[in-house]
Amino acid sequence: MVPFTLLSLIGVQSTLGKAGRERQQGLSATKRDLRSESSMEHLSEYVEGPLLDNLYWDTWYNNISLPQDENLIFYENALLGVPRIRQLKVRNNSCVVHGYFENSILDCYGAYSHENEDVSTFGPGNHAAWKYQQPKLYDWYWGELGYYGSGGYVVNLTRTKPGSAKLLADLKHNSWLDVGTRAVFIEFSVYNANVNLFCIVRLLIEFPATGGALTSWDFCSVKFLRYVSAIDYFIASCEIIFCLFMFAFLIQSCVGLCKMKNMISYYKNVWNCIDLVMIAIAFVAIGFHVYCTVEVPKLMVDLSHNQTTYTDFQFLAYWQVQYNNMIAFNIFLAWIKVLKFINFNKTMTQLTTTLFRSTKELIGFAVIFCIVFLSYAQFAYLSFGAELESFHTFQNCM
Amino acid sequence: MVPFTLLSLIGVQSTLGKAGRERQQGLSATKRDLRSESSMEHLSEYVEGPLLDNLYWDTWYNNISLPQDENLIFYENALLGVPRIRQLKVRNNSCVVHGYFENSILDCYGAYSHENEDVSTFGPGNHAAWKYQQPKLYDWYWGELGYYGSGGYVVNLTRTKPGSAKLLADLKHNSWLDVGTRAVFIEFSVYNANVNLFCIVRLLIEFPATGGALTSWDFCSVKFLRYVSAIDYFIASCEIIFCLFMFAFLIQSCVGLCKMKNMISYYKNVWNCIDLVMIAIAFVAIGFHVYCTVEVPKLMVDLSHNQTTYTDFQFLAYWQVQYNNMIAFNIFLAWIKVLKFINFNKTMTQLTTTLFRSTKELIGFAVIFCIVFLSYAQFAYLSFGAELESFHTFQNCM
Amino acid sequence: MVPFTLLSLIGVQSTLGKAGRERQQGLSATKRDLRSESSMEHLSEYVEGPLLDNLYWDTWYNNISLPQDENLIFYENALLGVPRIRQLKVRNNSCVVHGYFENSILDCYGAYSHENEDVSTFGPGNHAAWKYQQPKLYDWYWGELGYYGSGGYVVNLTRTKPGSAKLLADLKHNSWLDVGTRAVFIEFSVYNANVNLFCIVRLLIEFPATGGALTSWDFCSVKFLRYVSAIDYFIASCEIIFCLFMFAFLIQSCVGLCKMKNMISYYKNVWNCIDLVMIAIAFVAIGFHVYCTVEVPKLMVDLSHNQTTYTDFQFLAYWQVQYNNMIAFNIFLAWIKVLKFINFNKTMTQLTTTLFRSTKELIGFAVIFCIVFLSYAQFAYLSFGAELESFHTFQNCM
Amino acid sequence: MVPFTLLSLIGVQSTLGKAGRERQQGLSATKRDLRSESSMEHLSEYVEGPLLDNLYWDTWYNNISLPQDENLIFYENALLGVPRIRQLKVRNNSCVVHGYFENSILDCYGAYSHENEDVSTFGPGNHAAWKYQQPKLYDWYWGELGYYGSGGYVVNLTRTKPGSAKLLADLKHNSWLDVGTRAVFIEFSVYNANVNLFCIVRLLIEFPATGGALTSWDFCSVKFLRYVSAIDYFIASCEIIFCLFMFAFLIQSCVGLCKMKNMISYYKNVWNCIDLVMIAIAFVAIGFHVYCTVEVPKLMVDLSHNQTTYTDFQFLAYWQVQYNNMIAFNIFLAWIKVLKFINFNKTMTQLTTTLFRSTKELIGFAVIFCIVFLSYAQFAYLSFGAELESFHTFQNCM
Repeated sequence: MVPFTLLSLIGVQSTLGKAGRERQQGLSATKRDLRSESSMEHLSEYVEGPLLDNLYWDTWYNNISLPQDENLIFYENALLGVPRIRQLKVRNNSCVVHGYFENSILDCYGAYSHENEDVSTFGPGNHAAWKYQQPKLYDWYWGELGYYGSGGYVVNLTRTKPGSAKLLADLKHNSWLDVGTRAVFIEFSVYNANVNLFCIVRLLIEFPATGGALTSWDFCSVKFLRYVSAIDYFIASCEIIFCLFMFAFLIQSCVGLCKMKNMISYYKNVWNCIDLVMIAIAFVAIGFHVYCTVEVPKLMVDLSHNQTTYTDFQFLAYWQVQYNNMIAFNIFLAWIKVLKFINFNKTMTQLTTTLFRSTKELIGFAVIFCIVFLSYAQFAYLSFGAELESFHTFQNCM
Repeated sequence: MVPFTLLSLIGVQSTLGKAGRERQQGLSATKRDLRSESSMEHLSEYVEGPLLDNLYWDTWYNNISLPQDENLIFYENALLGVPRIRQLKVRNNSCVVHGYFENSILDCYGAYSHENEDVSTFGPGNHAAWKYQQPKLYDWYWGELGYYGSGGYVVNLTRTKPGSAKLLADLKHNSWLDVGTRAVFIEFSVYNANVNLFCIVRLLIEFPATGGALTSWDFCSVKFLRYVSAIDYFIASCEIIFCLFMFAFLIQSCVGLCKMKNMISYYKNVWNCIDLVMIAIAFVAIGFHVYCTVEVPKLMVDLSHNQTTYTDFQFLAYWQVQYNNMIAFNIFLAWIKVLKFINFNKTMTQLTTTLFRSTKELIGFAVIFCIVFLSYAQFAYLSFGAELESFHTFQNCM
Repeated sequence: MVPFTLLSLIGVQSTLGKAGRERQQGLSATKRDLRSESSMEHLSEYVEGPLLDNLYWDTWYNNISLPQDENLIFYENALLGVPRIRQLKVRNNSCVVHGYFENSILDCYGAYSHENEDVSTFGPGNHAAWKYQQPKLYDWYWGELGYYGSGGYVVNLTRTKPGSAKLLADLKHNSWLDVGTRAVFIEFSVYNANVNLFCIVRLLIEFPATGGALTSWDFCSVKFLRYVSAIDYFIASCEIIFCLFMFAFLIQSCVGLCKMKNMISYYKNVWNCIDLVMIAIAFVAIGFHVYCTVEVPKLMVDLSHNQTTYTDFQFLAYWQVQYNNMIAFNIFLAWIKVLKFINFNKTMTQLTTTLFRSTKELIGFAVIFCIVFLSYAQFAYLSFGAELESFHTFQNCM
Repeated sequence: MVPFTLLSLIGVQSTLGKAGRERQQGLSATKRDLRSESSMEHLSEYVEGPLLDNLYWDTWYNNISLPQDENLIFYENALLGVPRIRQLKVRNNSCVVHGYFENSILDCYGAYSHENEDVSTFGPGNHAAWKYQQPKLYDWYWGELGYYGSGGYVVNLTRTKPGSAKLLADLKHNSWLDVGTRAVFIEFSVYNANVNLFCIVRLLIEFPATGGALTSWDFCSVKFLRYVSAIDYFIASCEIIFCLFMFAFLIQSCVGLCKMKNMISYYKNVWNCIDLVMIAIAFVAIGFHVYCTVEVPKLMVDLSHNQTTYTDFQFLAYWQVQYNNMIAFNIFLAWIKVLKFINFNKTMTQLTTTLFRSTKELIGFAVIFCIVFLSYAQFAYLSFGAELESFHTFQNCM
């Protein structure tokens, strides 16, 4: 089942991923100009230029206008609802200025953290963009420099290019981005009917407290509407058979467990443990699958009622990735289990015995190796970490 | 014989290959513009700009005009007949749109497959370019995304630049490319008299159902007219000697085979099997060689009668590549056969015996290794396949 | 203590480092123009263009002017005092022209060395920029081509962009750079209040006697004002505890040393030697730390009195790097010392004994290996050193 | 002695080498234009643009004009005499056009070879540039595609930029380059008085018979005027001592050779052979050194009499490279000889004995390895050689 989904998934991924990379390149290309300007200026240029051009495709390749409603990205991907731009800020005086500079440096905006976050209304204040919106509990995101919540100052763009351009010009004129801005998210979702896949896109620009900007991005391609074509219904029946089989397997394992007099001896056998882990993961995956099948239609109905709001697929996309990882780990275990049935091999037994007998020496050697290795790594980190980029985290040093 | 051909072959290959790469770069360079546009627009720009400039060279390097008939590519390569542009489309509604999007998404063009192919006349319909042309049975081509036949909507360009430009402008104005277009082929052949080599060129732009475009290309340099200069006639005599020798070798092998009482014991000797394979390949190669020598003059006569048609060398070029591979494999076997006569070496015997005795353990180990390796590969594929390009096929994961 | 400092240090480093790289790229980008010009012209273009733009940020990203005093680099980093440009020259006739060229080549400016240095006043001579300034004793710098002192012809820029631009235009008009110029330093310091870090920047352009130019740069991020926020005071208390502990450790070692009858046997134990080295390094580091804490306030007070002079942090920055290296080496030794307490391991003992017994053979082999290796390296250096860049120093050959 | 020379040598090499690379990049940068044009057009653009700008530096970095005679490249390198442009052509009908194309393709210019070379006067014929000049016997050059003599159609540029530009425009107008052109050499020499080094430059553009162009270059930095500064005279005295020592060593070896009763046993000792080789190489090197010291002053006197001719240093430069290689090989042998005196080592003896005893098995294995390796290499070459650039020579395949 999974491979079928993935094959098409990779298709949309690679294409949209490339689109994302091009956009990033657009951003970084402007950076490479001879006259290097402020990175906020780049962001502003990027949003007003390449981003709007890529979100709203209003002409055909030979400059014939397209109908109003068919602004499909790359002519194939429908924009779901509207894109959203969101910024997170820190309060002024979120860090301490030393006495020597008290007169010359009046503001101090520290690195982003939940405590330092600015939640006050600012600027003209006549629009949702200038008012802080509380975060949802569940949606968090790891950027390059921090761990960001889903709150902040939110701007929903419109379904048309001129409308969005006007909105952005307005924000720019009133300096929506300021010195306290620490992260800007650009979020939107598209649906490709040809391959029946959603793509949930999140572009992130972070402004560290040291100046400059770091860009990162996250594309997630998911098949939320699972049962559309004939092959999908075949997969659905496979899924049902898989569920039945898992149920049978669960009962069989329980019986096996009960029959054992000594429970601990059951767990001592590593194959039994693998069985239990596989069953557990399979049921969690099935649970998420059912949840997803129930939840998506609700979002779809919301979306069809009101096209001009931002529809949040981020949470479902995040869990879809976890679901894929679970399935992948389960199949990995299934392959390993095949070894159980061919373990009669003599060479293998010898190998195992040898490993068992030299355990003590191996552990001793491992400890010494770790100490020496760590001491070298720390030495490299402390000496070169501040100067060479390849040593700038302890992980890289190792 | 082969090395002689190849040395010059590589010459034209590397030069024209570079030309092809430059053209590709031309295409991709436009992609890298800050304002990233639709990929069809890029194709249209590419065809009207770099492609026409590279196909029709009408001025000398100091801007002196060249005579009409001498539009040699790179001043050295004569265009044979006319270039051809060919597109393959898919039908509308070749995939199913889910109920939620029935009102907002009206069209659905699936990935290319033979069943989904569009064969109806479209657009103005007053020209061959708008009518479907049936494919030939034998000419297929593997692109990045599919397996394409030789049919489709075909445009033959003209022998002059203004004529071709007018033709292309006409197609663009009437939107020859549309949302259903899945692949565009640009095909032409050139002949370089200086090195007596043909170069059969095929540029392919694929439009996946997810949007965007993928480009690939195929350059094939072949020496169709084998016997021109003095050295060629020397090679011809070598070829005749080779044929006679193969014939003698065939008879000798047959006699050896008949003498054996037990046919199976004959095949048990691996050297005899190699002999048989070598003879079989050699005769197939000789057969193709004769076919080619007969077929090329026919095409040449056709071409000299009518310069304004597209002459299809693709089939011959494909078999020429197979012919090269056959020859390469045969020479590889011939080298290996040398080992037969130096097998008295003692060390070798020891090595062989050792390998023979440990066969069982080696097979056991190989099986276990394969299982563990496959399980890791599948795990990587499922987990990272949708996100990292280096894992996006199962082959790469491995 | 060190890791805390370093984490933030790396932050500012990477950002400002990137800025520096961009500037370098700006310089090298101009080099890559089709019409390759003199490298001095590039330097002049770079200084008047990207450098001034990057030092004085006078507008916000939407082109609203910033207040006069808040020209923060990247909107976050305050320029301390003024930037300084400094050049080193060599005297004419610092090398000998052969008799054959005496008439055609009138000048000869050798490679930079202290003996060849030009100390005479030149040009209009009405400004400090045209008069040689004596070097300080302690501040030296290794460039790519030589070892430069801190003297030379010095220009202090101003706090405003127009003022600096006028100054530079004046220098250019009177040909401040001439054929004898061998090195140009651009030096300035910035302070980032958000992360409480100084960044001392030194850009170097060297003009070898062979023509052309080589660029290099040095960014040093230091936390000179150590005790500002709450966490800093916690670190301060840790530092005091560390000092007390080191004092106790020193006394304990002295006592252990005195108890030993035979001093030499004490030193024979490698662990004791490591202890002594650690103590020595720790006290040197503590000493520098105290010196730094005393010296920085003086510089700060000077700076607050007069913003329009160049404040020289280079010396402190240099020692800060040494301090980091000392700490890193000490922690490395501390990790190694952990081995002392797990040396009971049997495998280790075997390893040690084996190494001990084969010392003689190992040394013999090492000598032979070195000779053969050196001979190959020298061969490669002499043969390819003048032609291939990867062999152009003896170190690289090895 | 050699290291001293090389250190400075590398200086000028790397700088001028970079200049050469920049020029190449200039050439290739124009290639990368979207509208890919004929490579001859690129050459013409390159010669008229970057080349002239780099050969004649007439303004200082702030646009103040330099005196007429001081047009030093990079302000430091004097152009010796005038630059020379030289082309080699092939005759029309130097290859055979097949009967099928006799009417459409009238010309056939084969690959460059001495037999195909065109020696007739062409174009206006009123200038040396249009007349063939006979090659010297000794000066040959390996390009990427062939082995070129020193003859051809030669243009000497002038000492001034406008003069050279006029000359080049004239050549272009009369189509000096034509379809038969197979190679263009750009040759000049510069002298850097600061480091007392000559740099002999040769840029080569080859036009293969398949169209397109390949560029390569050769920079040779030589210290022809050896005795100028004080350190040079010290080296001279070292050289004299070296000669005396070699003479003594020669006598000693001869005596040792005579004392031996059996001459063959003398040669059996590998150390004696090394001694003889070292002596032979040293005397050849000394001989060349003396020749060079005699020959250079003649060229210098010629040059000082007439600045407007091309002075040919190529021959001396070629031998200087051979001289360096000889010295390098000699020093390599000298290092190896050190092993003679430390051969008492026991481990070494064991190693030697082991190698001696297993000679037969090693040779057998080597033969089999070679056969299998060659068969794979040939297979790869024949199969992929025509398609992948990394396999396009047999050497690369291996």
